[in-house]
Amino acid sequence: MQSNDSIKALVDIIESRRSIRLFDKTPVPGEVIEKALDLALLAPNSSNLQPWEFYWVRNPESKSELVKACFSQAAAATAAELVVCIARTRTWKRNCEDMKEQLEKAEKQGTRIPKAAWLYYRKIAPLMYTQGRFGVLGLLKCIGFFILGFWKPVSREPMSSHDMKIWATKTTALACENFMLAVRAFGFDTCPMEGMDSRRVKKILKLPGDALVPMVIAIGKRREDGVTLPRIRGPRSWFIKTI
Amino acid sequence: MQSNDSIKALVDIIESRRSIRLFDKTPVPGEVIEKALDLALLAPNSSNLQPWEFYWVRNPESKSELVKACFSQAAAATAAELVVCIARTRTWKRNCEDMKEQLEKAEKQGTRIPKAAWLYYRKIAPLMYTQGRFGVLGLLKCIGFFILGFWKPVSREPMSSHDMKIWATKTTALACENFMLAVRAFGFDTCPMEGMDSRRVKKILKLPGDALVPMVIAIGKRREDGVTLPRIRGPRSWFIKTI
Repeated sequence: MQSNDSIKALVDIIESRRSIRLFDKTPVPGEVIEKALDLALLAPNSSNLQPWEFYWVRNPESKSELVKACFSQAAAATAAELVVCIARTRTWKRNCEDMKEQLEKAEKQGTRIPKAAWLYYRKIAPLMYTQGRFGVLGLLKCIGFFILGFWKPVSREPMSSHDMKIWATKTTALACENFMLAVRAFGFDTCPMEGMDSRRVKKILKLPGDALVPMVIAIGKRREDGVTLPRIRGPRSWFIKTI
Repeated sequence: MQSNDSIKALVDIIESRRSIRLFDKTPVPGEVIEKALDLALLAPNSSNLQPWEFYWVRNPESKSELVKACFSQAAAATAAELVVCIARTRTWKRNCEDMKEQLEKAEKQGTRIPKAAWLYYRKIAPLMYTQGRFGVLGLLKCIGFFILGFWKPVSREPMSSHDMKIWATKTTALACENFMLAVRAFGFDTCPMEGMDSRRVKKILKLPGDALVPMVIAIGKRREDGVTLPRIRGPRSWFIKTI
């Protein structure tokens, strides 16, 4: 595809995406959700450690509980489908092991893997993302890097369990945006909801303690009155700066 | 545009986007960066409080300092352009005021603004996002909601300055993904870098204390050997679940 068509298509998708508060009763084909989820997982992600999870809640009982956990807001209550987006701070070790295995397989099949990648997944990533019991290792790293930082550029994050939450949420959000754009490209609509009871959402999905709920995404076809506010942004100069 | 062409274009953009470690010397037209930044600002964002900022670093001296702060990694050193993505936890008040003003303007021009929106921007948003000196208000809200939460679904975040960091970073990441996809749609490439000295980056840009640096994005045209690893993802079932 020519970049001219490509950018036109993307502009159309991004500009026509709005957070929809009221959906009509049109069902969303399962393939739309499946494909949009697959595209979500192609987002760039921190060190390829994939700290994301997506729960497509189809079971009517869980779905009705989930709507309540989203304060029964109209976007949730009228949505054809609901997807819960989860960020995990403790799955990176499993994913790092998997990454090494897949790299080994690729190398055996003839792909050249740079030495730096082996070093990264064998030594650096475990050191960077392990914060230790009560965050002790993180604190030691923080002090060490702070001192070293007087002489040379050093990593400043993640150095605590809290930094890990920011880290996992950030990567998950990149995937969420892919998902919402993909749903829009299929001609359907979304509403990302942060207004929800994350504790109840975790209970409904039986999620472990390290799971965070960056957002729940409502999916459906917009009703004509589904956009409730004009699209407003502050002055461009507040947000885009050239230096 | 038909949704068939639309999804094909998006699939092509998302699948061909890779994190590029080596760029060739092709310059990136200024309009590409400008338009991609405009599209970034159309991402959905929490309560429309727009806690993001994007610094396009063109000044050669600052750029060279920035490359060093990114550990002089090849992606930064060979990039035609560098954009620093910033999340702010203290600009929401200004943006909330602006939102009210723009809603008032829209109403005067005949747009119907729902009562809920007035209530939200006048009362609820300030209550939700103010954490108070030393986070005291946040703590009180946290306790209050925790107790109320035994009876009904309640908000659990943001209740601390730390939650505010997660909040601002999450929204900024949504915009970052729009930006990277737009650059790709124009036929150019990106590398999102979290491996950098955020303290030094903030110093170079003279940013205030509440600014976070979710990522620095390198932009350019990929060299043939610019993709250094095969695209690897863990088993789909680890990340996509249907319940």
